[in-house]
Amino acid sequence: MITKKEIKYLSSLKQKKNRLLNNEMLIEGSKLILDALKHKQHIKKIIYSNKDSNFNEIRTYAKQNNINMELCSKKDSERISDTKNSQQIFGHINFKSPTKINENTIINDNIIIIDGISDPGNMGTILRTCSWFGFYNIILTNDSVELFNPKTVRSGMGAHFHLAHTYKDSIDNIIKFLKNYNYEIIVTALKGENINKYNTKNKKWALILGNEAHGVSKKSIDSANTIINIDGEKTMESLNVAEAASIIMHYLYQGK
Amino acid sequence: MITKKEIKYLSSLKQKKNRLLNNEMLIEGSKLILDALKHKQHIKKIIYSNKDSNFNEIRTYAKQNNINMELCSKKDSERISDTKNSQQIFGHINFKSPTKINENTIINDNIIIIDGISDPGNMGTILRTCSWFGFYNIILTNDSVELFNPKTVRSGMGAHFHLAHTYKDSIDNIIKFLKNYNYEIIVTALKGENINKYNTKNKKWALILGNEAHGVSKKSIDSANTIINIDGEKTMESLNVAEAASIIMHYLYQGK
Repeated sequence: MITKKEIKYLSSLKQKKNRLLNNEMLIEGSKLILDALKHKQHIKKIIYSNKDSNFNEIRTYAKQNNINMELCSKKDSERISDTKNSQQIFGHINFKSPTKINENTIINDNIIIIDGISDPGNMGTILRTCSWFGFYNIILTNDSVELFNPKTVRSGMGAHFHLAHTYKDSIDNIIKFLKNYNYEIIVTALKGENINKYNTKNKKWALILGNEAHGVSKKSIDSANTIINIDGEKTMESLNVAEAASIIMHYLYQGK
Repeated sequence: MITKKEIKYLSSLKQKKNRLLNNEMLIEGSKLILDALKHKQHIKKIIYSNKDSNFNEIRTYAKQNNINMELCSKKDSERISDTKNSQQIFGHINFKSPTKINENTIINDNIIIIDGISDPGNMGTILRTCSWFGFYNIILTNDSVELFNPKTVRSGMGAHFHLAHTYKDSIDNIIKFLKNYNYEIIVTALKGENINKYNTKNKKWALILGNEAHGVSKKSIDSANTIINIDGEKTMESLNVAEAASIIMHYLYQGK
């Protein structure tokens, strides 16, 4: 059985400051844990209280990778859980925080840039779409929501474990980096050109996605080589950023 | 000043059963209220407690439409609010519940069908995208989340007020209706054909969107004329339903 002290520590990981102290967090649910196991994430321990479930596949993977599985009480499980209907199985993981961009940073691929997205659900959904289309290099601006926020990880549905590299920096440093490496910078704004007129073939691009309420920052728009827009009927003021992101990523993916 | 009894009633509208009793709900925030006013929704009253805000535009519209604006205390406002950072302005509205399909039901346009979507945020986001692309006819299956759930309305960002007609019925009746009127039924499933190969021109179509965990129901798949898929890298098991919906609606919109 797990100790009271450990439960207290695991429960403390609900707070951002505690997560960032040692880059540790709890992930919840079989699917997410299995995905973390399959993608060789650093899992310190698996904790569960649901004795009725066998968790056979998780058990097999855990054994192969020398990861302990420890039982806790249902009450402890409720204490460490971040969800309403908990599956009562948790992975205590070490995550890789996004790094700053420096002179040695090299990204040999297209990039998705998250410029001030504040809703963890939106961020997770966008990462899920990135993973679907194989865009594994992500840069966040400093004012974006935490990459390993539990809600972000939950709505990411495993996408976090597929990412190649993640960076976090100021928008100034990000733009400087993109310009240095001759990236085609794409942003969306209402004044932009219909996306269908945009030709992506043979271009190394970076797509900047903006904040839910304020859109892409002025600095990002000023830096852009291409401003695009998604045609619509103009009844709504805007599309949700995650929806716009999906449509654009689908378009860019086809041009690959 | 508003009465204690009325505050109690408004607060009771947080519960589904009370909303459905008289088809009444509270909408929150200036943007949503303005959108409801502009789209001539049935607003019984506007309640606010934020004395610092002028709400000038709302005041003008409210006056033109003979809608009362009543002050309440900050405490009352907290009691009736459904959000964390309330703007302290509320619209008490009468909404039009979705109706059953019958022999007289005629829809002269393309249709979006919500087949068992359970997350209110997803539902609202999908409606927002529908409105963006001008797809204003929506049919929900009986097991879908409530159309006028406060979270759905919030993430719909006003889309609810743009819809032409909404229906709610069993999937059997929905499919019967679509077949009767020779709709081209489109569903998404992993075994489907790449969406880009699908030609929408001059077709009257109905797009069925499925549940978050289980996808489109078997009955829907069996009824389909066209099963489509969104090409990807297969790292993820699936895209979020609202993301898939956005990509497909964007595609269908272009074919209009």
